[in-house]
Amino acid sequence: MPELRLNVITRDWVVMATERTRRPDEFAGERPPRPGLPAHDSECPFCPGNEAMTEGELYSTQKGGQWALRVIANKYPALVASGERRRKGEGLFHVMDGVGFHEVVVEHPRHDRTLDSMTVGEVHDVLQAYRERYAAVRNDPRVEAVIIFKNHGEAAGTSLCHPHSQIAATPVVPFQVRSRLIESVRFFDEHGECIFCRVLREELGSGERVIVESPHFVVFHPFAALSPFHTWIFPRRHAASFDDVTPEELLDFAQVLRRTLRKLSRGLNDPPFNYAIRSVPVKEANPDYFHWYLTIIPRVTRTAGFEMGSGMFINTSLPEESAEFLRGVEDGD
Amino acid sequence: MPELRLNVITRDWVVMATERTRRPDEFAGERPPRPGLPAHDSECPFCPGNEAMTEGELYSTQKGGQWALRVIANKYPALVASGERRRKGEGLFHVMDGVGFHEVVVEHPRHDRTLDSMTVGEVHDVLQAYRERYAAVRNDPRVEAVIIFKNHGEAAGTSLCHPHSQIAATPVVPFQVRSRLIESVRFFDEHGECIFCRVLREELGSGERVIVESPHFVVFHPFAALSPFHTWIFPRRHAASFDDVTPEELLDFAQVLRRTLRKLSRGLNDPPFNYAIRSVPVKEANPDYFHWYLTIIPRVTRTAGFEMGSGMFINTSLPEESAEFLRGVEDGD
Repeated sequence: MPELRLNVITRDWVVMATERTRRPDEFAGERPPRPGLPAHDSECPFCPGNEAMTEGELYSTQKGGQWALRVIANKYPALVASGERRRKGEGLFHVMDGVGFHEVVVEHPRHDRTLDSMTVGEVHDVLQAYRERYAAVRNDPRVEAVIIFKNHGEAAGTSLCHPHSQIAATPVVPFQVRSRLIESVRFFDEHGECIFCRVLREELGSGERVIVESPHFVVFHPFAALSPFHTWIFPRRHAASFDDVTPEELLDFAQVLRRTLRKLSRGLNDPPFNYAIRSVPVKEANPDYFHWYLTIIPRVTRTAGFEMGSGMFINTSLPEESAEFLRGVEDGD
Repeated sequence: MPELRLNVITRDWVVMATERTRRPDEFAGERPPRPGLPAHDSECPFCPGNEAMTEGELYSTQKGGQWALRVIANKYPALVASGERRRKGEGLFHVMDGVGFHEVVVEHPRHDRTLDSMTVGEVHDVLQAYRERYAAVRNDPRVEAVIIFKNHGEAAGTSLCHPHSQIAATPVVPFQVRSRLIESVRFFDEHGECIFCRVLREELGSGERVIVESPHFVVFHPFAALSPFHTWIFPRRHAASFDDVTPEELLDFAQVLRRTLRKLSRGLNDPPFNYAIRSVPVKEANPDYFHWYLTIIPRVTRTAGFEMGSGMFINTSLPEESAEFLRGVEDGD
């Protein structure tokens, strides 16, 4: 009998498809090994020496006389910094200029590095860059929300192998974000508690879906994971926005994120994945009802007409089983 | 300058990515031709002679002493007919049994047919089967919503080439569906008009995104199409539920759907696609604020971290251009 679970944070119903469930290790099997990459690729716009192929630098760190990390404007931006946030259009044709920010974090000079193969210090530098740029773009009055995200692998939407992530600052609060916020306000009104804090408490109480625990973070699969190996990293301390993170937390976050990505990469044979850091929209201060977090979606299955039509998800992996599997995957150096 | 458009029906913001826009015919180019299929495949569970490989038949039509179309229970159902719709679980772990219906419509005996290569009469038979099964499952008191959908091609989530579609009856109204309903109620309260009827009127007024018009239906790209060639087929007459369709409308629908799929298939080189027919949840009678429709998503691009993180969509094709392109694609026999 399939089981329906409600994801109380996203509000989605998920079918745990017992008739089609696969063992955790089966999600690793079908992927050809990623081609070995050179340390430097002369065609790659993100490799050292090719700086002229990209737009103006917004932030960088240096090591041994060359850059160690750079943040640059996206060459093909979805949102641009010039222009006004003004509604146009007639009738129901609502239009505005695509103002905002769309930046690329080139995480490392080496073409063949990945977050899970960098040192903890290097991952920390990446997170520090996220935080700096978050703080910079949030102050623009046209910005409503800031999202930090990563596409790893072609099936996750990137054709550039060089390690990079992206920061987008949008001039609207999208409906999906607004709807979830309203639900979290409702929960707070009813229970006097942040729903994320409550979920974290319940997940720690059960323990079945917890993968990594650290002083400041907990990594777990949501009870109603939307897809196989859907993973959340929650800070233990309530804070609504990623840029509220303390220096001590950020260092711990670097360790935890690296361990989590190692487990996924080693356990699932370097799967394509997306991650995103979600924060409260920037014009809300630090409300009691929202809690920032990082969400990872390994792209090991596809959604199809069922999901599109019904608005429900189908998950062919039980989160309790995949958490147990990932706990057992070695994440040391 | 990229442009943001609001899809007033789904409430999503879409970035029309002017920096990355591709010409309509470029979406056809990169796909290898689909392998030629045999008329009969002895391994295919949906081919005549292999009926024992599938579950019990729920509906069929006959022609020349053999079946012409069959509806069967899905062998790997996401939802099953036995059991009770009872909430279980503790704390925030909300669970229920996956009760409902999940059926497969085997559209034709021939393995190598597709909706766009069938006769109008055969397409009409498929739509008639949808309607019959919709009417049958909606009466179960555990059912809240009925969705009819199709996955065509591997990238759209199917591995079975034999022409088929699916019907799912869910025991919950998912959040996404409920949220959109609430917005359509709000529009009705403010304007005294169904938002779908209004959108249809404005689209006909503009004409720029209209692809096909028939006596009872209009085919168009939404002004804020969520992805390239995202297509809607709206009935002109206001009705909240697919099973309110009249016999005359159903025949016209068969012609219009076939023409639309021909245009997409010929213009885009047989792209993978999903379609779904959306109706009001079954426990609402025939409200003024919702309007049934069919939505088609050709799978010619992928969503990635931007969409996942921001809750916005990026569309690399202008709907005005792709509509003009499709209007020019021959859809005759």
